[in-house]
Amino acid sequence: MNTLTQPQSDTLWHTIRRETEQACADEPTLASFLHLTVLRHQSFERVLAFHLSSKLASPIMDARALYEIYLNALRSDDSIVEAALADIVAYYERDAACDAYSLPLLYYKGFHAIQAHRINHWLWQQGRRTLAYFLQNRASEVFGVDIHPAARFGHGIMIDHGTGVVVGETAVLGNDISLLHGVTLGGSGKESGDRHPKIGDGVMIGANASVLGNIRVHNCAKIGAGSVVVEDVPAHTTVVGVPARTVVGQSGCHMPAAEMDQRI
Amino acid sequence: MNTLTQPQSDTLWHTIRRETEQACADEPTLASFLHLTVLRHQSFERVLAFHLSSKLASPIMDARALYEIYLNALRSDDSIVEAALADIVAYYERDAACDAYSLPLLYYKGFHAIQAHRINHWLWQQGRRTLAYFLQNRASEVFGVDIHPAARFGHGIMIDHGTGVVVGETAVLGNDISLLHGVTLGGSGKESGDRHPKIGDGVMIGANASVLGNIRVHNCAKIGAGSVVVEDVPAHTTVVGVPARTVVGQSGCHMPAAEMDQRI
Amino acid sequence: MNTLTQPQSDTLWHTIRRETEQACADEPTLASFLHLTVLRHQSFERVLAFHLSSKLASPIMDARALYEIYLNALRSDDSIVEAALADIVAYYERDAACDAYSLPLLYYKGFHAIQAHRINHWLWQQGRRTLAYFLQNRASEVFGVDIHPAARFGHGIMIDHGTGVVVGETAVLGNDISLLHGVTLGGSGKESGDRHPKIGDGVMIGANASVLGNIRVHNCAKIGAGSVVVEDVPAHTTVVGVPARTVVGQSGCHMPAAEMDQRI
Amino acid sequence: MNTLTQPQSDTLWHTIRRETEQACADEPTLASFLHLTVLRHQSFERVLAFHLSSKLASPIMDARALYEIYLNALRSDDSIVEAALADIVAYYERDAACDAYSLPLLYYKGFHAIQAHRINHWLWQQGRRTLAYFLQNRASEVFGVDIHPAARFGHGIMIDHGTGVVVGETAVLGNDISLLHGVTLGGSGKESGDRHPKIGDGVMIGANASVLGNIRVHNCAKIGAGSVVVEDVPAHTTVVGVPARTVVGQSGCHMPAAEMDQRI
Amino acid sequence: MNTLTQPQSDTLWHTIRRETEQACADEPTLASFLHLTVLRHQSFERVLAFHLSSKLASPIMDARALYEIYLNALRSDDSIVEAALADIVAYYERDAACDAYSLPLLYYKGFHAIQAHRINHWLWQQGRRTLAYFLQNRASEVFGVDIHPAARFGHGIMIDHGTGVVVGETAVLGNDISLLHGVTLGGSGKESGDRHPKIGDGVMIGANASVLGNIRVHNCAKIGAGSVVVEDVPAHTTVVGVPARTVVGQSGCHMPAAEMDQRI
Amino acid sequence: MNTLTQPQSDTLWHTIRRETEQACADEPTLASFLHLTVLRHQSFERVLAFHLSSKLASPIMDARALYEIYLNALRSDDSIVEAALADIVAYYERDAACDAYSLPLLYYKGFHAIQAHRINHWLWQQGRRTLAYFLQNRASEVFGVDIHPAARFGHGIMIDHGTGVVVGETAVLGNDISLLHGVTLGGSGKESGDRHPKIGDGVMIGANASVLGNIRVHNCAKIGAGSVVVEDVPAHTTVVGVPARTVVGQSGCHMPAAEMDQRI
Repeated sequence: MNTLTQPQSDTLWHTIRRETEQACADEPTLASFLHLTVLRHQSFERVLAFHLSSKLASPIMDARALYEIYLNALRSDDSIVEAALADIVAYYERDAACDAYSLPLLYYKGFHAIQAHRINHWLWQQGRRTLAYFLQNRASEVFGVDIHPAARFGHGIMIDHGTGVVVGETAVLGNDISLLHGVTLGGSGKESGDRHPKIGDGVMIGANASVLGNIRVHNCAKIGAGSVVVEDVPAHTTVVGVPARTVVGQSGCHMPAAEMDQRI
Repeated sequence: MNTLTQPQSDTLWHTIRRETEQACADEPTLASFLHLTVLRHQSFERVLAFHLSSKLASPIMDARALYEIYLNALRSDDSIVEAALADIVAYYERDAACDAYSLPLLYYKGFHAIQAHRINHWLWQQGRRTLAYFLQNRASEVFGVDIHPAARFGHGIMIDHGTGVVVGETAVLGNDISLLHGVTLGGSGKESGDRHPKIGDGVMIGANASVLGNIRVHNCAKIGAGSVVVEDVPAHTTVVGVPARTVVGQSGCHMPAAEMDQRI
Repeated sequence: MNTLTQPQSDTLWHTIRRETEQACADEPTLASFLHLTVLRHQSFERVLAFHLSSKLASPIMDARALYEIYLNALRSDDSIVEAALADIVAYYERDAACDAYSLPLLYYKGFHAIQAHRINHWLWQQGRRTLAYFLQNRASEVFGVDIHPAARFGHGIMIDHGTGVVVGETAVLGNDISLLHGVTLGGSGKESGDRHPKIGDGVMIGANASVLGNIRVHNCAKIGAGSVVVEDVPAHTTVVGVPARTVVGQSGCHMPAAEMDQRI
Repeated sequence: MNTLTQPQSDTLWHTIRRETEQACADEPTLASFLHLTVLRHQSFERVLAFHLSSKLASPIMDARALYEIYLNALRSDDSIVEAALADIVAYYERDAACDAYSLPLLYYKGFHAIQAHRINHWLWQQGRRTLAYFLQNRASEVFGVDIHPAARFGHGIMIDHGTGVVVGETAVLGNDISLLHGVTLGGSGKESGDRHPKIGDGVMIGANASVLGNIRVHNCAKIGAGSVVVEDVPAHTTVVGVPARTVVGQSGCHMPAAEMDQRI
Repeated sequence: MNTLTQPQSDTLWHTIRRETEQACADEPTLASFLHLTVLRHQSFERVLAFHLSSKLASPIMDARALYEIYLNALRSDDSIVEAALADIVAYYERDAACDAYSLPLLYYKGFHAIQAHRINHWLWQQGRRTLAYFLQNRASEVFGVDIHPAARFGHGIMIDHGTGVVVGETAVLGNDISLLHGVTLGGSGKESGDRHPKIGDGVMIGANASVLGNIRVHNCAKIGAGSVVVEDVPAHTTVVGVPARTVVGQSGCHMPAAEMDQRI
Repeated sequence: MNTLTQPQSDTLWHTIRRETEQACADEPTLASFLHLTVLRHQSFERVLAFHLSSKLASPIMDARALYEIYLNALRSDDSIVEAALADIVAYYERDAACDAYSLPLLYYKGFHAIQAHRINHWLWQQGRRTLAYFLQNRASEVFGVDIHPAARFGHGIMIDHGTGVVVGETAVLGNDISLLHGVTLGGSGKESGDRHPKIGDGVMIGANASVLGNIRVHNCAKIGAGSVVVEDVPAHTTVVGVPARTVVGQSGCHMPAAEMDQRI
């Protein structure tokens, strides 16, 4: 699945609301949190801006100001909300423990880190570098996920669990990608310029794997957990090891990101 | 050591109090913290509930309510406190830097993450899934440890340092296990059902190692740091590598979790 | 570069101020933060003490008291500030994404973790063990970096990104070292005593690599990402793999920490 | 009304719960607050201890510890809860704007100040003077009501609005008394000893009135707003003025505190 | 002055911005506060909603939610902003210590209390009684000003200093009124119904004066400090005393509220 | 008593420390608060600056910055600390409920309000008007005491209880003065210029009394509670009433502020 049509988006939003209403009834301890964060809002974009601002506000960065900054970004660039919705579907379809659309939205810090980055990238593009650095640091402290604001992300991306993920300045991620926790899309060398990986559509990268340097991981490749990749990976292949070598010429599934098969 | 007798538990509790009284006298800056958290309480269970609620409370989740939820759990299920005490002994005996029983209780986030999980598991079993998801997320943010509330833990477990540890929904951990930071007990594939590892008694898993899929790591096996394990590991063997292969047919000690020998 | 002369230090401090003044003008949302943290202070040591106390203060540890403790440490031991300045230069020279001296100071949690540790080490040496344990735990929660207060650090050290870094009690780091995130300088075995690695000058250790036991990584060696090292590494060599083996007899550059070449 | 029978207390508690359930349904923004403060508790005493600890906790005084101190006091001395319930009835019967029993409990700072004082008086009697002074100060900051912990209060007392009320160390208040905001029951002279007013049953004291010195205001007397009383006031009389003089030999109602007639 | 024309409102708003820009330059410690609260906003209504939400937010009432509630009220009822602007002019013209229009907006709690009440009155009219009671209590704690949400306020009202002011449920205030701190517009008797004062245009009421019962203080009357008024006051007269008597048949100025002559 | 000699100041400081050590031992719940606020400091000026910054810090005004501002003021102008010490002695000698020198310092908001004002006056004189207005507002919210930063205060001043006290811009207070809560030293008229009272040495002003206009209350005069004074009061006389009239040609004691006799 690449992007959602408007009816699909609307359905998703209403499903999230219904799930949240049920949760609200089940757990009164969290009723105001769920009302405040989801139920009182008229649109998904408000929910997203609100919840992210809850996560990253601090005595230095007022929650109201951050909420407005986030809302402004989401309204200025429709593609962020579209991508976030596609990400939610990705978690629901790929993570066997995720049996509700509201779960990634509310409770998965990998999801929060992706969306905070998308907005941070927008701020970066607007020239607000100081604010982007500040928020990158804050996300790194809160989520344990460190994504340079210049990195470019497609849609339908899942970062599972998230802790330890690092994505560098010139990294580019396509669509429908799954990254497990601890994944590094890192640079190589002290010179500036284009020095981080380009990840194709449908790629899955296992836990704690490192992909280093300006290399290309082609569509639907799979990188095993703990592997270290320093050379291009052809499409539909699986690589594994430190350093990684090809183990399967054609990866054993249509789209590794969707299958989430961790066997190597 | 498996479980503590009541006299052993009482002795441990009194030792912790004595250590804390000494710390209180040594460091007046922390005197009220130590009094508030340890010395004013009549029982270990109160200390545990109090300290965990200090760690995980937030503007959304009131510290008093969380303390009561935690205390209620500990009183409803004696085995959680028993297991926590066995865990403290495990840290003391296995971590050479741990020269006081109060250290894991007060300052080791791996220990905090285990105990928060044990209670979260109890909440999960009580059907309070919304609250369990909420607290899993909170623990993941604060400790960098992400344990699905359904995972089952034995006693005498040490998670050293903790950052980056991930344990999946259908994982089962036996007793007297040592996990270093960055260890993943992960699933494989997008289908639900039993898909995470089963870890036997006495197992040690080194830093950043990944054990993936519904496989069995038998008693007293040892998994080297950075290894990726996707197949069963026989008892008393050591495996290492990406992917891991057996390096020692019979691991060179009675119980790797207790020896903590990281050589491979 | 090893240490900075006084004129170099003064120049660095004035450069940081100028950069911050510019950031202040560019981003009024952060103006008071930047004024409060940098511009109103007469010296770099005050800025460092202030910013670290912002990061690690909590309801238990008052920000004013922590600021005074930190300032006292920095005034009692000049070498901490000297080393911190050398670290800033290291980030600037080695991290291609770091194009201003103020960035590591303000926004890099790896830098914050190093400096918090340097002061924590000073507290440890003063016999304030309770406070040192408390602050080690706090840094581990906030930065995801867990450094035992007894570990000894040289100057010119860069910890990039930081999440998941663990450094044990008897580890010793020389000068001009680069550690990526997820690096472990761990012990082996449950016995106390000297049991952690000794890292020579100019060494670079890649992401998620583990160096385990009382071994020696000699000057200007390079350890590949994801590698697990359990034996001494000769000077000017590159090792890689799980377990690591030598891949280059003479590492291909003068000082790997400065080159940051992640290829293996 | 003097004291409530147990069935009356139970009825009152259930009425408060019903009112709160309705408020919870009407105003989801406050649902968790109402659940947390009222609905999840099994008894009125828990609600009272919880809500007062919400009001007076601070970074110095942990909410959990304060809640336990308050709960312990309420359990040790039944008469505090009995008096608090009688106070609620007093507000309901005498304050025309109070059309629900839950209103004083939840929203009237005069009520909060009385109950915080009752417990503070208990602490004072237990010899915990430091804590009592601390909490007196805290209540004075939060409620604008300054009551010395040694002052003795009967039951069925209403302090309306509260701001500016001051009650001195040796003051004694009987039962069924109404004090408006700004009322002072003050001392006279710098010598210690019994130097504050004694207020009889059924007395009403109008806004900003001062009663000064060890004098006696006999049962069912009425003191006009803004008056200054420095001599005994006979029963069933009304006094007014600066200084106050008797305006009505027999106050024109059975119990001024209940009638709340401010005419003079 | 009764109401401002649109050009006057615009001029006032721009003057406030200019004053704030100057303050921002003079006091960098408060630069972000002033930016956050005033300078980044496009309209006065946003500033008002933001600043009031800063004052009254709490762990129970999220600042973002309160800001939205306040903004919604201000947008739904233009007259609140119009009245607030007229109030600012009133402070500027009547309070000799007020030499800038931004001062009441930013720093005068009497002004904050009036505006919080105007919005609370709107909530009351919308049927949100629970929220109105909650916010009345919060304002009473923070400002020491207790205004029943049903009370009706005109425009051009100044409450100077504010502490201790109480205004009852059925009170009605006209336009261009000055109240000093400690003023009570209170009820009389325990019966519900219309029982509080009606205050005409141009009236001034001195510090700590009480006006009690359903009486009428006619236009341009003046009530001396500390007085207690229980009967109607004719227009253009001055009354004083406990109880108050007429001292000047025709008060010695056109509009006492504007003159602020406290002599009696 | 006018001012303290250095030996007296030193004795007072050591007495306060001793009292605090005893309180610390008696009430472990407050041990860290007392250590943090008093015992760890080398001088009274640090204690004063620290405690006031605890009271008035907020998310907008960092506690560390405020502490430094306060400490800087106290070091720049010795007379503030001298006056504060004289004030403490005044409370001890005049308030029968005050049986320890540490009580006003730690727990009396009237004392806190005076000292916060003294420093605010210093800021005002330094031209930091924006900061002074900000802190005046903050003190008004926290203490319920509203003192214009330009007002001039002597030493040996006691404000008892404090709630509702208002002091205007051009008011001048001599030495050894006692003000009860609710006292207003207010202006009259909307014109700027010298318009507030001048209070001589040794004066006592009772609760809720108002002194209005540029009038002079001569040395050792006494103003009864609730009185309203709009004309000069001769030395050694007692006035009372609304408006006040002389009741005693020569007030019945040497210095009313010291005697605290509230009879009229």
